[in-house]
Amino acid sequence: MTDTLALVPSGIDTYRQPVVYMHEDCHVCRSEGFAAQTRIRIDLKDRWIIATLNVVGRGAWLAVDQAALSFSAWAALEAQAGDRAAFSHPEPPASASMIRAKAYGERLDQAGFAGIVSDTLDNRLSDLELAAFVTACAGDRLDEAETVALTRAMKDAGQTLDWGDRAVLDKHCVGGLPGNRTTPIVVAIVAAAGYLIPKTSSRAITSPAGTADTMETMAPVALDAAALRRVVEAEGGCIVWGGGLALSPADDHFIRVERPLDFDSTGQLVASVLSKKAAAGATHVLIDIPVGPTAKVRSAGAAEALGTRLSSVGKALGLNLALHVSDGVAPVGRGIGPALEALDVLAVLRRAPDAPGDLRMRALDLAGHLLDLAQEAGQGRGRAEQLLDSGAAEAKFMAICAAQGGFREPGTAEQRIDICAPHAGQLTAVDSRRIARIAKLAGAPRQKSAGIRLLVRIGDRVDSGQPLYELHAETPGELAYALAYAESQSGVLTLSGEMS
Amino acid sequence: MTDTLALVPSGIDTYRQPVVYMHEDCHVCRSEGFAAQTRIRIDLKDRWIIATLNVVGRGAWLAVDQAALSFSAWAALEAQAGDRAAFSHPEPPASASMIRAKAYGERLDQAGFAGIVSDTLDNRLSDLELAAFVTACAGDRLDEAETVALTRAMKDAGQTLDWGDRAVLDKHCVGGLPGNRTTPIVVAIVAAAGYLIPKTSSRAITSPAGTADTMETMAPVALDAAALRRVVEAEGGCIVWGGGLALSPADDHFIRVERPLDFDSTGQLVASVLSKKAAAGATHVLIDIPVGPTAKVRSAGAAEALGTRLSSVGKALGLNLALHVSDGVAPVGRGIGPALEALDVLAVLRRAPDAPGDLRMRALDLAGHLLDLAQEAGQGRGRAEQLLDSGAAEAKFMAICAAQGGFREPGTAEQRIDICAPHAGQLTAVDSRRIARIAKLAGAPRQKSAGIRLLVRIGDRVDSGQPLYELHAETPGELAYALAYAESQSGVLTLSGEMS
Repeated sequence: MTDTLALVPSGIDTYRQPVVYMHEDCHVCRSEGFAAQTRIRIDLKDRWIIATLNVVGRGAWLAVDQAALSFSAWAALEAQAGDRAAFSHPEPPASASMIRAKAYGERLDQAGFAGIVSDTLDNRLSDLELAAFVTACAGDRLDEAETVALTRAMKDAGQTLDWGDRAVLDKHCVGGLPGNRTTPIVVAIVAAAGYLIPKTSSRAITSPAGTADTMETMAPVALDAAALRRVVEAEGGCIVWGGGLALSPADDHFIRVERPLDFDSTGQLVASVLSKKAAAGATHVLIDIPVGPTAKVRSAGAAEALGTRLSSVGKALGLNLALHVSDGVAPVGRGIGPALEALDVLAVLRRAPDAPGDLRMRALDLAGHLLDLAQEAGQGRGRAEQLLDSGAAEAKFMAICAAQGGFREPGTAEQRIDICAPHAGQLTAVDSRRIARIAKLAGAPRQKSAGIRLLVRIGDRVDSGQPLYELHAETPGELAYALAYAESQSGVLTLSGEMS
Repeated sequence: MTDTLALVPSGIDTYRQPVVYMHEDCHVCRSEGFAAQTRIRIDLKDRWIIATLNVVGRGAWLAVDQAALSFSAWAALEAQAGDRAAFSHPEPPASASMIRAKAYGERLDQAGFAGIVSDTLDNRLSDLELAAFVTACAGDRLDEAETVALTRAMKDAGQTLDWGDRAVLDKHCVGGLPGNRTTPIVVAIVAAAGYLIPKTSSRAITSPAGTADTMETMAPVALDAAALRRVVEAEGGCIVWGGGLALSPADDHFIRVERPLDFDSTGQLVASVLSKKAAAGATHVLIDIPVGPTAKVRSAGAAEALGTRLSSVGKALGLNLALHVSDGVAPVGRGIGPALEALDVLAVLRRAPDAPGDLRMRALDLAGHLLDLAQEAGQGRGRAEQLLDSGAAEAKFMAICAAQGGFREPGTAEQRIDICAPHAGQLTAVDSRRIARIAKLAGAPRQKSAGIRLLVRIGDRVDSGQPLYELHAETPGELAYALAYAESQSGVLTLSGEMS
């Protein structure tokens, strides 16, 4: 029963799903009764993974006495070509029964959630089981105590940062508003005010830019925990990519299945946000909730329900948490896309005459609220404005960039085209979702300088033929592709008096 | 925007999940923004599928201007090497919002379920979405009206058989009891009594043998609808594989995700069983529910709840439905595995002196109950016994086999070994689940003659060293493999006075 095979790389990228390829005549498949889609445990030295089997036919690219691995499986096992690995049926994960219980409507306790989180991180749960868990928690099926338990389980399963007994400030925006790139400005102001603000941000998953994507056009963001600590101890703040830090690492797994399902789950949203904040060592957290018809949170009622749950769970975790409900009706600033948003951020920090006023106001409001939350008690807004206008925030931002590895100016795209008004009118609405889609079709966030630059704001009067926004792309093909989509859509920007 | 590529076979079996492989430098991936795990619509002539993308790296087996397809994707598109197919982002399936609604706790109506079933059959829903649907219906989350609606939707989405206004009998066993192979005997008796019983059965998915697997060791079972009709019009009954008939075809998709989740969902079980019976044109249906600690239904309460729902939904669908709750404490007959169970069936039909009495009694009880349900009103059991004892049932079975393509004797395995009692005692319990697992490790159902032959029954006294059961396998490797597992387990068969 020595079921071993020599490992070879398959050259196949299956993203995070580990896949193993075996020959249809492979003795291990036969003796173990493995068939396509069987989940198989693979042991190599002291490492192991669970992978999904795909079976390769005779005469294709795989030898009968070899097993090929997908990129993610190869990396997780730290395999070397020719290593012999052992293949077996995995034990059913203990937490599968917890997922079943939750699906049947039972409540789970701390140990139940901890088991699910632990098996998730070990990749013992299949994507089907993760989808079942996410579904069983959808809507309002996690009560407050369960949300607290899930948040704790997610936080405890990863790395945590410890800043001693100092106040540690943090902010988070419940996303959905293109261009709303306040974070670099808020961090600069708060750090300039002398507070600790070790900000970790995400890359875009479904949006044209995440804060980490935008920041990366100006400075390195892929710092490890030791480098993050050096930057924060030196400058008070940082703006780094959280993905490499393993703060609440189960969240990425849940999001991977939750996102394609497009489930709106209060409990999991709260656990996702607060587990990461708690793991980062935050003590004072401000949550920005933009509300608008095409934003993530679409009504005041939804914002209140989410806010109530965030507050109660934050309190249970010992966080000093405040809510900041903001206008989510239209994109913020001019740029949508990593570099285009960075240009807006820099214009605000540099007090440029053409800096977008809405981005500046939002950043000041948030920074002021966060300073108030810490200890400024009503003086925060004024202090934030003074720090921005004096250039102290700009200097702090440049110092943070230097500490993270060096500042650079964001690039600009070579391919540009104007999208013009089909007739005269007044701009009455912007569809944030479709604007974001056009920016993505132009190449954002993969192509850093691709995206959209809005030239008009809601309330502006425009003449027929006047440019409404610019499309930016790095290649002519992507420009044409985004343009074709933009021209096929009506109502992305709504002009009063529009012809039908 | 002509996003076409030449198709090549990948040689990779991903079971039912269609996968497309594209080169990492492929212009279609770049222009469309496809990445690993993206779901892609592929159009070829008048056919289309939705497939999951795996990305093949440079220097591996795929050319940059080609797209390779998994077996299932290739077959579904009816592709020929060199065909050029078009690749695009699929529209989100309309029924995804129905699945979300159900996950949030809303009730679905007939149109809602019909949309989900239709998108499932078109493969528009991802496995994650199917898992979410199954989870949202788990436990008792489908009420009676929803179960009726789902059953109708599943039935209406496939082929249906029409037998005019004749009475059409059928039986179904809510599985979980190894060796409980009553169907061929019941069909033979009922057809010999002059009734129509067009029985379609499944192959094993997680058990050592399905009725179709067992029947296939004696006669062809992969008949199409026209052949099925010929057999039934000639002989009154058949025992064929239902998988090729597209009766309630969505069921296979749901089961594919439900089975690995091991969800116990009354609504989906009822919809699965009754949609197939209704589609096969049944008018009188007997449902056998074995109850036992290691059977699928584990308590009288669970059997009653399931029975109530089966009855009410059956009534709503116009079926004359009866329940037959039976003892599910131990395996039935001696054999476990396709050919070994066929030998038990033949022994009963042939009135062999060593025929397993429990299998005979169960088959007679079921056939009698089914005859009563049709019109025999209390005389069914006696009539069934007379038809079996007279040889009429045997003759009918042979005629059915001949009509299906010809009878053959089941094979026997060359590799056998006895598993013996470690000490003297009385057999008090059999763990049906682990007995089934041992039979599967020996090769059942893939190897037709592999499996287990039980030599003792509950209540038997055995001496130390007396054989308890035989392991049968077609290769020495499989025999050794099953033996190793069997020897590693205690409590598969429980002997009173067992040493700890």
